[in-house]
Amino acid sequence: MPTLIINGKEIAHSIKKQMTTRINYFKTNHHINPNVATIKIGQDPSSDLYLKLRNKACKEVGITTTEIDFEASISQEEVVQTLIDLNHNNAIHGILIQYPVPQHIHQFQLMNTISPQKDIEGLHPHNLGQTLLGNEYLVPCTPLAVIKILEHEAIDLTGKNVTIINHSNVVGKPLAVMCLNRNATVNVCNIFTKDITPFTKKADVLIPATGIPGLITKNHIKKNSIIIDVGIAATKDGIKGDVNRTSVDNIAAKLTPVPGGVGPVTIASSIINMVQILEHNTKNQ
Amino acid sequence: MPTLIINGKEIAHSIKKQMTTRINYFKTNHHINPNVATIKIGQDPSSDLYLKLRNKACKEVGITTTEIDFEASISQEEVVQTLIDLNHNNAIHGILIQYPVPQHIHQFQLMNTISPQKDIEGLHPHNLGQTLLGNEYLVPCTPLAVIKILEHEAIDLTGKNVTIINHSNVVGKPLAVMCLNRNATVNVCNIFTKDITPFTKKADVLIPATGIPGLITKNHIKKNSIIIDVGIAATKDGIKGDVNRTSVDNIAAKLTPVPGGVGPVTIASSIINMVQILEHNTKNQ
Repeated sequence: MPTLIINGKEIAHSIKKQMTTRINYFKTNHHINPNVATIKIGQDPSSDLYLKLRNKACKEVGITTTEIDFEASISQEEVVQTLIDLNHNNAIHGILIQYPVPQHIHQFQLMNTISPQKDIEGLHPHNLGQTLLGNEYLVPCTPLAVIKILEHEAIDLTGKNVTIINHSNVVGKPLAVMCLNRNATVNVCNIFTKDITPFTKKADVLIPATGIPGLITKNHIKKNSIIIDVGIAATKDGIKGDVNRTSVDNIAAKLTPVPGGVGPVTIASSIINMVQILEHNTKNQ
Repeated sequence: MPTLIINGKEIAHSIKKQMTTRINYFKTNHHINPNVATIKIGQDPSSDLYLKLRNKACKEVGITTTEIDFEASISQEEVVQTLIDLNHNNAIHGILIQYPVPQHIHQFQLMNTISPQKDIEGLHPHNLGQTLLGNEYLVPCTPLAVIKILEHEAIDLTGKNVTIINHSNVVGKPLAVMCLNRNATVNVCNIFTKDITPFTKKADVLIPATGIPGLITKNHIKKNSIIIDVGIAATKDGIKGDVNRTSVDNIAAKLTPVPGGVGPVTIASSIINMVQILEHNTKNQ
């Protein structure tokens, strides 16, 4: 059977459609004008593109974006003060920092300064701790996208072998705990893993996120597995994922393509978090 | 080669000795009388014993304990109010709740109410989030004990295959992220895992925490592996761990016994957290 290619754009579209309905509800019934502040420090071509796509998605669903662009030379103190002001600004519901930030900026302090109630990236320690405890509320967008895709494909993770190739703070670690929250058996490989094959070969659900184009071939995978390709790399042949699509065809049951797979759903996931914030705020009104 | 039995009591003794020196330093130089409030709700024979051992360990290292015993029928509100009072009480440096708590008590709310600065169990969402981010400060005591034992045995986790059999909030999930923070390849099995053997057999470091006495036999393990047995069960033949010690002998390189392995080090680990709090407080003075 040819491998079914999961359409990430379609899933993202369907999420955005649902979110639009809910956002309109807040606008009509609570007279809220949902507004996300996006902070960009310096220039970075790939993250500029990402931010542009995020802002476009916000517009589509009826969220206003307030863009704050800092020069790369901005001081830590000024960024922190801006975040504190945004935390206190009732017209701002969510705050997003576009990573990576320049080297002299302490990323952890920024994550920690954003109010956990406005943390639409789900990276504040309090939100990450709640995610670990299984009280998922605002969760990191890429792991959320993976979960949303699996839900869309009606894949129950209970008892499934999930292998993640990434152990970063924004992808691998939160995704691992989210899969454990859903009672999967979870394997997390990383750059120090001597041989990933025994782990990838056992995976019912394989989630590579290495940025090494074409790393995953037919030799790595289990028959009828689901592959959610989080990898992304710019090559001379265009944007490529971690999976060699030709090689795994007819072996994997389903595969997300790159581009058009996890990417669009990740952008839609930040809107899910925004709606969570709006619901939480109006519940407490 | 006969399997080397790791002496948890000795490791705990050595930790407590180091901590005593540091605690005496705070007493002499900062005129602090370190004081932990321990909260017990209702009766539970095994947790009563555990609390007794913890209080004894505190006494040994020079920490005062303030014991607060509630009837099982206490209301959530009263416990929460007590925690808030303790958070504001400058004479109290750490707060510990003895789990399990009666069913009508919402454990998550209690974890959330303890000030993250006094959370000697490392279970506040903020501290768990920091642990996930690799900023380990106050971490859950059982995972910390496992890490301390591995450090004592000079086992570098980088690139090692670690298999954990437990996916709870207090053991499996925080331990998994702590092993990932140390660049291990991590496999987490749980009650929904159809067959643990392929995962246990590949483990350089195997950490069972199921409470099923004798679950792990020679058929499960890799030659020369290290087994840190977190399981504990009261049987008619006494306290037993997850590992069938006779069966794994001569195959595992090292094994922690039950009792006398992880247990005493877990108790010593809550004292490590207490010293972390004292150091943090005096740094900010």
